[in-house]
Amino acid sequence: MALSTELTELLGVAAPDRAGTDGRFGRGALAAAVSRAGGLGLLGGAYGDRAWPEREVPIVAEGTDQPWGVGFLTWAIDAGEVEQALEFSPAAVMLSFGDPSPFVDRIRRSNAVLIVQVTDLDEARRAVDVGADVIVAQGTESGGHGARRGRSTLPFVPLVVDLAAPVPVLAAGGIADGRGVAAALALGAAGALIGTRFQATTEALVDRSISKAIIEGRGQDTERNSVLDIARGAGRPTEKYTARTLSHPYLDRWRGREAELVGDSQARRDYQDDVARGAIPSLPVWAGEAVDLITDLPSAANLVTTLAAHAEDALTWAGRRRPNNRPRAHG
Amino acid sequence: MALSTELTELLGVAAPDRAGTDGRFGRGALAAAVSRAGGLGLLGGAYGDRAWPEREVPIVAEGTDQPWGVGFLTWAIDAGEVEQALEFSPAAVMLSFGDPSPFVDRIRRSNAVLIVQVTDLDEARRAVDVGADVIVAQGTESGGHGARRGRSTLPFVPLVVDLAAPVPVLAAGGIADGRGVAAALALGAAGALIGTRFQATTEALVDRSISKAIIEGRGQDTERNSVLDIARGAGRPTEKYTARTLSHPYLDRWRGREAELVGDSQARRDYQDDVARGAIPSLPVWAGEAVDLITDLPSAANLVTTLAAHAEDALTWAGRRRPNNRPRAHG
Repeated sequence: MALSTELTELLGVAAPDRAGTDGRFGRGALAAAVSRAGGLGLLGGAYGDRAWPEREVPIVAEGTDQPWGVGFLTWAIDAGEVEQALEFSPAAVMLSFGDPSPFVDRIRRSNAVLIVQVTDLDEARRAVDVGADVIVAQGTESGGHGARRGRSTLPFVPLVVDLAAPVPVLAAGGIADGRGVAAALALGAAGALIGTRFQATTEALVDRSISKAIIEGRGQDTERNSVLDIARGAGRPTEKYTARTLSHPYLDRWRGREAELVGDSQARRDYQDDVARGAIPSLPVWAGEAVDLITDLPSAANLVTTLAAHAEDALTWAGRRRPNNRPRAHG
Repeated sequence: MALSTELTELLGVAAPDRAGTDGRFGRGALAAAVSRAGGLGLLGGAYGDRAWPEREVPIVAEGTDQPWGVGFLTWAIDAGEVEQALEFSPAAVMLSFGDPSPFVDRIRRSNAVLIVQVTDLDEARRAVDVGADVIVAQGTESGGHGARRGRSTLPFVPLVVDLAAPVPVLAAGGIADGRGVAAALALGAAGALIGTRFQATTEALVDRSISKAIIEGRGQDTERNSVLDIARGAGRPTEKYTARTLSHPYLDRWRGREAELVGDSQARRDYQDDVARGAIPSLPVWAGEAVDLITDLPSAANLVTTLAAHAEDALTWAGRRRPNNRPRAHG
């Protein structure tokens, strides 16, 4: 695992895994751009749609000579999908949520760094036990999928850092600018995992309505829910994992009535019909609580550079404020 | 407002305002100890029990020659209580939640710095409009009272910093060690407001069962709720503000049935009876999500010193990790 030290020195780890959901749009170009710029671009696995990684993995593998990785939602994959990705020699494989153990041996036999994303202390302990090289501590602020009853990033990251040491930890959830990256480092993390912010880049091949929604969206309008996963028949383990999305008509209609929606097949058909006739978008807009901080549409390369420069500025600013430099009030 | 610059250079701002709830135990000694150690000790106002500040304010005023302050829950006070506190020349008055405007003119006519605590962007805008000298951006991780649908500290603080500039902002919620203080500074805050951590100090005159519960408590067992406010008849505006507490038998019994509990006077009498016969504690244990990070019972002075030293260490560590120093992977 010689790469782990180098990897954890990298600043920007883009994890647009939710962007791969349903295989609706490719991410190879974005992941490659992030890696070329000095981050670690992570390609979202397609879990269940093998045609998708077959198309996208070569795009990222050929798009950069820097380290890149691939991420999977553990609940949704089988060994074959991991095997397929490993054939392209990713520098890292990230497993998010659920039990990573069925895939660990195969990944550790490769040269890939094993990254495990966790949402609570039990998952963090299990990640250490299976020998993760890097652990991502994901707070509830995160866009897309995460724990139904999540922890907030600020108090959660230092706990995982203490529990996992010396295994390096990345902070995820609520980070969309250089100040967030700087805060992650101050909390003891070795870097940050950033998702939503990379949805609003020129390389993110999302529909223009999605990047617009992210640029205009407000954190107070994001909400963890399973309504939209149930309505669209996404087949997720909604009892444990929800997804943070921007507001949506079906969310307003069904909030708090998930069990009823599960039993109402007509309502789910209505959702599909509404999608088919263009009344609602084909997918929810997954977005984290830091979406307010996203106000432009840079290239991924510019974004990685800006995040690094602003993190530097934030640490310099914080250094000037550091307690031992403070003047004492009243002498 | 000449003091504001000095105040905002201070590191530790202890705000044990919830500790004053119901006037059950005094806080003058703790606030004085925090101020003597170089923080700004804030005495929780008693809102509605004037005998309490009459007893406690002189204790803090006489206990330190350093700046100290007093905090009020805006929904619960009248002008007389603010007047009473101002007679002791606090360096700062903090107003939390609700509309600060009825009290602003009187506070600004004194020499006290006006601190306004906010939980969303609308409250932050109003705080700027009324001329707050310092704004506290409180995240939902915070122990005790806060917004029912709160923002998380990590993404919320930079937003308030941008909105309020040049008014200095303090970060609150989820901060219980030096890493949290360092992260607050990295996010652009001028300091941190720390509550729960100061409940587990030798000067906090809480029942031993409460400091024990805080030392042993886990963040995953804390929960924002209005059940306990309703059950104990606290008279809070529970539609907007909840309180984060550790687990409690009445919370398990009534979770999700607040409206029913409001209408059930027998259940509320049962709660009082259970308190009277010692079956449940007289007050909930208010605790923030960072409670896992609290594992000892230092003096307040030692705690302020340790927070400062550890914040310094965290910034040094983060500085070594800062992006421009990183080695590039693959050369």
